[in-house]
Amino acid sequence: MASATLIALLHGPDQPGLVARVAGWIFARGGNILHADQHRDQEAGVFFQRVEWVPAAGADAAAAAEFTAFAATLGMQARLVSTARRQRVVLFVSKADHCFHDLVLRGRAGDLPGDLVGVVGNHPDLAAAAAGYGLPFHHVPVTPEGKAAAEARQLELLRAAGADLVVLARYMQVLSADFLERCGAPVINIHHSFLPAFAGGRPYHQAHTRGVKLIGATAHYATRDLDEGPIIHQDVARVTHRHGVDDLVRRGRDLERLVLAQAVRWHLEGRVLAYGNKTVVFD
Amino acid sequence: MASATLIALLHGPDQPGLVARVAGWIFARGGNILHADQHRDQEAGVFFQRVEWVPAAGADAAAAAEFTAFAATLGMQARLVSTARRQRVVLFVSKADHCFHDLVLRGRAGDLPGDLVGVVGNHPDLAAAAAGYGLPFHHVPVTPEGKAAAEARQLELLRAAGADLVVLARYMQVLSADFLERCGAPVINIHHSFLPAFAGGRPYHQAHTRGVKLIGATAHYATRDLDEGPIIHQDVARVTHRHGVDDLVRRGRDLERLVLAQAVRWHLEGRVLAYGNKTVVFD
Amino acid sequence: MASATLIALLHGPDQPGLVARVAGWIFARGGNILHADQHRDQEAGVFFQRVEWVPAAGADAAAAAEFTAFAATLGMQARLVSTARRQRVVLFVSKADHCFHDLVLRGRAGDLPGDLVGVVGNHPDLAAAAAGYGLPFHHVPVTPEGKAAAEARQLELLRAAGADLVVLARYMQVLSADFLERCGAPVINIHHSFLPAFAGGRPYHQAHTRGVKLIGATAHYATRDLDEGPIIHQDVARVTHRHGVDDLVRRGRDLERLVLAQAVRWHLEGRVLAYGNKTVVFD
Amino acid sequence: MASATLIALLHGPDQPGLVARVAGWIFARGGNILHADQHRDQEAGVFFQRVEWVPAAGADAAAAAEFTAFAATLGMQARLVSTARRQRVVLFVSKADHCFHDLVLRGRAGDLPGDLVGVVGNHPDLAAAAAGYGLPFHHVPVTPEGKAAAEARQLELLRAAGADLVVLARYMQVLSADFLERCGAPVINIHHSFLPAFAGGRPYHQAHTRGVKLIGATAHYATRDLDEGPIIHQDVARVTHRHGVDDLVRRGRDLERLVLAQAVRWHLEGRVLAYGNKTVVFD
Repeated sequence: MASATLIALLHGPDQPGLVARVAGWIFARGGNILHADQHRDQEAGVFFQRVEWVPAAGADAAAAAEFTAFAATLGMQARLVSTARRQRVVLFVSKADHCFHDLVLRGRAGDLPGDLVGVVGNHPDLAAAAAGYGLPFHHVPVTPEGKAAAEARQLELLRAAGADLVVLARYMQVLSADFLERCGAPVINIHHSFLPAFAGGRPYHQAHTRGVKLIGATAHYATRDLDEGPIIHQDVARVTHRHGVDDLVRRGRDLERLVLAQAVRWHLEGRVLAYGNKTVVFD
Repeated sequence: MASATLIALLHGPDQPGLVARVAGWIFARGGNILHADQHRDQEAGVFFQRVEWVPAAGADAAAAAEFTAFAATLGMQARLVSTARRQRVVLFVSKADHCFHDLVLRGRAGDLPGDLVGVVGNHPDLAAAAAGYGLPFHHVPVTPEGKAAAEARQLELLRAAGADLVVLARYMQVLSADFLERCGAPVINIHHSFLPAFAGGRPYHQAHTRGVKLIGATAHYATRDLDEGPIIHQDVARVTHRHGVDDLVRRGRDLERLVLAQAVRWHLEGRVLAYGNKTVVFD
Repeated sequence: MASATLIALLHGPDQPGLVARVAGWIFARGGNILHADQHRDQEAGVFFQRVEWVPAAGADAAAAAEFTAFAATLGMQARLVSTARRQRVVLFVSKADHCFHDLVLRGRAGDLPGDLVGVVGNHPDLAAAAAGYGLPFHHVPVTPEGKAAAEARQLELLRAAGADLVVLARYMQVLSADFLERCGAPVINIHHSFLPAFAGGRPYHQAHTRGVKLIGATAHYATRDLDEGPIIHQDVARVTHRHGVDDLVRRGRDLERLVLAQAVRWHLEGRVLAYGNKTVVFD
Repeated sequence: MASATLIALLHGPDQPGLVARVAGWIFARGGNILHADQHRDQEAGVFFQRVEWVPAAGADAAAAAEFTAFAATLGMQARLVSTARRQRVVLFVSKADHCFHDLVLRGRAGDLPGDLVGVVGNHPDLAAAAAGYGLPFHHVPVTPEGKAAAEARQLELLRAAGADLVVLARYMQVLSADFLERCGAPVINIHHSFLPAFAGGRPYHQAHTRGVKLIGATAHYATRDLDEGPIIHQDVARVTHRHGVDDLVRRGRDLERLVLAQAVRWHLEGRVLAYGNKTVVFD
């Protein structure tokens, strides 16, 4: 059984000696660094680091807060993840079930370092499937007039569930800027195209009309600018003139499943650092 | 040594019996079909076919014209390619030389079923390299005021060279609608992005700014609508936050080389049928 | 609703006029060819064809037998698939459930042109999951001494189920040559490596030991020569020194799922023609 | 213009504090770490690190030796590369020219952090092409009886050229264990298959006979065990039943070019650490 580790994601203005000072701080407190990976944005002069270590015995809860304070003295922001506590994930769904089944089955296979703790659907279609997996399902219908109330209800559910992460598993509603601000947890969305191509609705129809030879899928953090959030992962598949829109949709489902699952996994492993509208992924 | 073959690319309104009638016509004249591939656009009700056959001895020149007339009786347009005559290809270049070297070296290796017969550059940079390969190089500078005259000169050169195909091997000028109309030969361009994402100039800078995780290249027929012509081939490569713009440019060069060479090869083999703003590629 | 079609997979010694004669035969009986694709093995002089057509009204059952007889007059063997009757698929499983869930969920999503009608497991582990999907599960333990009896029981189950196809969804037992001969239905297996590399057991451990940079999966028809049957589909994924054996296993599961599902789909669509130890896949 | 940097590739038994001590040593001497990436082989208990830094002004030549001595005190072996001195690369060729042209053109485009300083061929075929690029070409024929003498001549040429790296760019001779031992520079080979599949000669014929659906290429360090050396990079391309052996060879050339060029580039950038029969590639 592996020891619990602390993972810090750091970024701030670059300056000489950062790698040495971070490593020295951990070493001085009896921690053992397992992985350390860093990146410099040469143009912007920003330093990014992911460092994972086994803290000295008994140091866990304190270590995280102390490290954050230490990072601040270097002018850096830090986000800490402790593997001692499993993160709690809530899925938002509509009618399509392929990403939903995929994530749940990966969770059950032990492939995700987090727990799926609930499902919120604006349609009731996946209630039975969620029940079959023993997952609480909350039906929160969303209508144009009732959107604010629905989002208030969703926020309540997230708070009650203690959500650390929200995954939009083909959830077909746009979340308001207000919701995203008050949500308190990052939100990962899967868009069924190679963004920025074919942003907006019905991307497979757009792709078919344009006659592209590849289709794609993009997992990104949801932000107030629809389809403009920081991209975590993307992939593509080859299509030909023989594929109708239905075939694109079917092939796209495999892409969506794989791209979303990888993005969620990387996020839960503390590998994704968003800054501006980009990400640094320490894979 | 393989026998010379005729390749017909056909399309027209779908109707029962087309496959049988085309095959029957060829068989009745002593031809032997080597490959026949067809496609139906179910939505548009259009039939597409590529058929390649060895005509009966002595039938070559006549057979092409007769076949075109026969196709017309079925309501179909036909384009015929005979492998008995090698197609003549002219390259347009600017300063970048990677696609230029790549196509010339493939030609010399016997990988392209056509002959590179000349190079037209709006800059003189590649004159020496062309001379090293024994290829005629024509320097035709293009200025805003002198564009019409330059295009007239280019058209003269194409006519003199007997060009069957023009390949824009990273040629950094937009061709006018008038040029494309009077050119008399298809024009293939390589765009350094996954179209329709990042159309227009400096796509690698755009890709870097957006933080995408894949970069692409697109080979397409040039049409009067810049970056909107029928796509022949596309491919992508994975990039990370570690790649600066220079790295994207360098990685992009490999993509551009491969995607353009594949598109040119497919075109010369009579495998690409453009209709509307799409292509059917019988690969 | 699409009309029922007949699909013929043909092969035999090449001779002039085969395309015309097959198309002519169908046309003369009022059939309308939707797709026709053929291939010539130049070295072996063998002709292969897949042709799909809508027979004249009322002609279905007779047409298949008549076509087979017609093909014989051309010296060709024909296998016919009618979309009017859905094929019946039986899964063989052991303990691993990822390919099992994947195929069942694709079936329920309507992505496979066939019906999963039963599951046979040499371990009882997946009985509850099968029940959850409403699928009959048969536990047939296999021991070294009881293997012949177990195979006899499996053959009975296949006969009772009317199986048209057996899919080994990570079934960890070798089937005897006798079983394969008497089985009466093709058997598709998924091997967790890029065959012929790492044939035999524990391929991910072998891959890790050798330090390869790609891992693979191979779907093939099972034959009496283990891991030597005709390959239907293969794919690979990139790995690095950072991946331990566990990571290879986890990444491999995605490959296995996708490669097996694609092979099963192609088989059910009548796109795979096996000859010798190779396949022609008309995709 | 970027400052010259030092790159150290380290490995040795894992122990707590290695990251901190290496970073601290560099920082204490006024060096500024640009990149630091490390890896732990959990099973073998081995620590691997690549660290790149700008040494304090005037410290260059001394710093490399001092660092190596320091690493030894930690029980680690270190290989140092200084970007202040460009590495010298010698190509070995036979008749095939695609990898040769590719590497030379990349060198001329400034894509390789090293200089191609000479070409050794066991056939004279590429002498003229080398001359066209202004590269010294040495024809060293190799016969069964004259192999020892030929290798002695090759070793002389490498010594005279001051070779830091030898690249077998489709060199069709096996180098003796004795040569490899006395060579004094690493040797990178490109094998035209996805090793370990189809090791030995004529891999495209083997691939065609087996009916695989992907072909590959593998760049590896040459060792005394033919085709068994540590793998640096691999890639594959999809093929179908339509591809004859000639097509596999042609497609394979693109793979070979790209895979070899990437491996050479990584090596010259000090990103490849070989240990046992594996590599760690810090990309």
